[in-house]
Amino acid sequence: MTTDITEYTAVELTRLIRQRHLSAREVVEAHLARIERTNPHVNAIVTLVAERALDEARAADDRLAAGHPVGPLHGLPVAHKDTHDTAGIRTTYGTPVLADNLPDTDELVVERLRGAGAITIGKTNVPEFAAGSHTVNPLFGATANPYDTTKSAGGSSGGAAAALACGMHPLADGSDMGGSLRNPASFCNVVGLRPSPGRVPSWPEQAAWTSMAVQGPMARTVTDTALALSVLAGPDARSPVSVPEPGSCFAEPLESDLAGMRVAFSPDLGGSVPVDPSVTTALESAAKVFADLGGTVERACPDFAGAEDVFRTLRAWQFDLDLGRVRDQHGDRLKASLIDNIDAGRDLTGADLARAARGRTELFHRMRRFFLDYDVLLLPVSQVPPFPVELEYPGSVDGVAMDSYLDWMRSAYFVSATGCPALAVPAGFTDGGLPVGVQVVGPHRADLAVLRAGYAFEQATRHWQRRPRLGDGERP
Amino acid sequence: MTTDITEYTAVELTRLIRQRHLSAREVVEAHLARIERTNPHVNAIVTLVAERALDEARAADDRLAAGHPVGPLHGLPVAHKDTHDTAGIRTTYGTPVLADNLPDTDELVVERLRGAGAITIGKTNVPEFAAGSHTVNPLFGATANPYDTTKSAGGSSGGAAAALACGMHPLADGSDMGGSLRNPASFCNVVGLRPSPGRVPSWPEQAAWTSMAVQGPMARTVTDTALALSVLAGPDARSPVSVPEPGSCFAEPLESDLAGMRVAFSPDLGGSVPVDPSVTTALESAAKVFADLGGTVERACPDFAGAEDVFRTLRAWQFDLDLGRVRDQHGDRLKASLIDNIDAGRDLTGADLARAARGRTELFHRMRRFFLDYDVLLLPVSQVPPFPVELEYPGSVDGVAMDSYLDWMRSAYFVSATGCPALAVPAGFTDGGLPVGVQVVGPHRADLAVLRAGYAFEQATRHWQRRPRLGDGERP
Repeated sequence: MTTDITEYTAVELTRLIRQRHLSAREVVEAHLARIERTNPHVNAIVTLVAERALDEARAADDRLAAGHPVGPLHGLPVAHKDTHDTAGIRTTYGTPVLADNLPDTDELVVERLRGAGAITIGKTNVPEFAAGSHTVNPLFGATANPYDTTKSAGGSSGGAAAALACGMHPLADGSDMGGSLRNPASFCNVVGLRPSPGRVPSWPEQAAWTSMAVQGPMARTVTDTALALSVLAGPDARSPVSVPEPGSCFAEPLESDLAGMRVAFSPDLGGSVPVDPSVTTALESAAKVFADLGGTVERACPDFAGAEDVFRTLRAWQFDLDLGRVRDQHGDRLKASLIDNIDAGRDLTGADLARAARGRTELFHRMRRFFLDYDVLLLPVSQVPPFPVELEYPGSVDGVAMDSYLDWMRSAYFVSATGCPALAVPAGFTDGGLPVGVQVVGPHRADLAVLRAGYAFEQATRHWQRRPRLGDGERP
Repeated sequence: MTTDITEYTAVELTRLIRQRHLSAREVVEAHLARIERTNPHVNAIVTLVAERALDEARAADDRLAAGHPVGPLHGLPVAHKDTHDTAGIRTTYGTPVLADNLPDTDELVVERLRGAGAITIGKTNVPEFAAGSHTVNPLFGATANPYDTTKSAGGSSGGAAAALACGMHPLADGSDMGGSLRNPASFCNVVGLRPSPGRVPSWPEQAAWTSMAVQGPMARTVTDTALALSVLAGPDARSPVSVPEPGSCFAEPLESDLAGMRVAFSPDLGGSVPVDPSVTTALESAAKVFADLGGTVERACPDFAGAEDVFRTLRAWQFDLDLGRVRDQHGDRLKASLIDNIDAGRDLTGADLARAARGRTELFHRMRRFFLDYDVLLLPVSQVPPFPVELEYPGSVDGVAMDSYLDWMRSAYFVSATGCPALAVPAGFTDGGLPVGVQVVGPHRADLAVLRAGYAFEQATRHWQRRPRLGDGERP
């Protein structure tokens, strides 16, 4: 019985709870049991608040029984990224510097999920300060891939992706500067959406007017991702760049098909990045699905020239902005690559940032013009399948050496530089059984179009799906 | 007869044209006649396209006669700021470097006004590259104040404000980084709105994601300003930071009153800037109007600490970003203060910009909290009444020396740094007969609330109004 509960989608679970076929307590208990059995294999959830979650579940059941109004996520267990502040729950950012950090306020995405009735069961693992697409830190170690625990779960929202894949909770929040909602989704065969800037307002932020880093939802299905987005999106007075369209526009059914969809497809970003052949093969199959179902698929790619400089420059600047003080006070306790990134930001000039701002604008317009001819653009999420968990990063991609932990993330961060929304959707497996995701990119602010395309693709490829079987041979 | 036509408001004129009581041609001819008589006194319009405007007016009349649909500004003459690109019309930016610049594309604000049926009659004067709040440049000289032609019309949208005051056209566009839509409105007894960032999308921009400089409307009345905003506002795919609320929300009547309005009033920004006593006296009278009509007026001011650094830093950066190349190619032909501003931007570090970004965020939140207790904040627009036109800037304010052409603009640019919308509304005259404006500031994105408050104030003070009489003794 408990096994069954954790297989439901979030949409199904909220309906079953609201109709009182299941109690919130049963749902939370089932997920806690799943965590107990699977988390030791993957190390996805690093702080568990089981008692508190059970108390909240009881209160949720009471509220429903009393006929009080309930939110769209009523009774649903969620876990929050450990870089997201949670009132009264340890929030470490994966760094020894904040090992005992106990926030007194939920940050906005946490507040929204909980305000919609979700029940917090814990925190998900991250790389130190969410830097990079491999989830490992000195406090908790690495998060393993549920499909092969010798491999990485990706990152930085790697704990969330692994937990979702294992059925530990049906929805999660995450954040994405250079791919952190997309890469782990790809590695763990789940769905992650990098929304358009301002779609999901974030607070607190040291620089509230900047928009390269965004927050967003992850789930096992596109429909569940849209459900989470419907709660996370919408304006908030604390975010000056928030988009004033209500989240409710993502609560409608995503029914759509691929017929007539104008699809651009580029398995290597127009030749600008190396891609592992196993990823390319999976991507070709994904593109074929779009074509077989009536989409017009063309090999085409916008010109990503400048994206490297735009992303690297703005990222370094943001790192110094956010973490410069931490570096000054606790430099000796931070990982070396993080210090390098912060220092790179410190060395920037106003002219560097002006060049990046101009480059970002040129990219934005190039994408805008590209999407006059296409509805969506299909790209790889990640250039490699999940790599060995003990590595800091893959040393090469398709024979091309990677010189830093950022180099192999270009397929994701080039898209970040454009401001376009991008959805990572499961697109099958390598011959070795490792997940591969396809990245569905759409025009600026066309988050709904991206979800609809991803949904249609997901519906057409349901027969490809399989859930992870962990090392113990048991269906987790 | 023609005199009467130029006294109508834009709202009245569009109705009279649509109902065919007046033809667009009559309206344009009347305004051209007014320009002929008044412009020599003030030098507001620096490029006139009379024949083209008459041709367009004829076409507008034909379209209406043929029963074709027409836009909300059908047949209305407008002039564009000379820093706004106009296809086929000389656009000099007030600089010798661009004396013969002939754009082949309208920029977005121009496109929107014309798309709504407005007829371009010419370009309005600006300081070189719109730098500063006094309209003078080496190509066309200074724009004089219609109320006293020995005084400045303010700037940088000084040509627009003077032209509106003289009745040369009923609506204008402008732009505002540090007060350029507000200061000239104040100096010329007209209305100027600095909208919230993204409310009026701008294109082309070298740095489309930045938002300190905004574009917006000017007019003689608040209702006309709202009419112009209804056309200028609303999202555009070319501006990634545009606010996706339709401009039509500003097309509704502004009916409102001051009863119960929670009004904060600070004639000297909490003691942070010197203000000329004649301005303070006018402001006190304006605050009294709010109190007499049922508003609760309290002396209160948000903490503007940091606004100086935020504005100066981001402005210098933007100058280098926008004009660095011009400086490299034509440095010897630009005014000295402009070169200093560009060089100040060039010398900035990433850390300087990070500090400014953090400061801007802190200011934003301080304003947000302040406006939990108040609906609007009344401030002076300008710290001085119009100063002698031959000066580069006022050398002192209330006995305090001003060391640069920016120093005296703090009452306006402190507000720019907050991201809040601000409306300059006529608030009477000094004993010497010079106009003084009150600045109505509201919460971020509450552009409509600011317009409504300004409208109620304007209605209550209509008996204060007087139009300029130029030096020849004639009602212009």
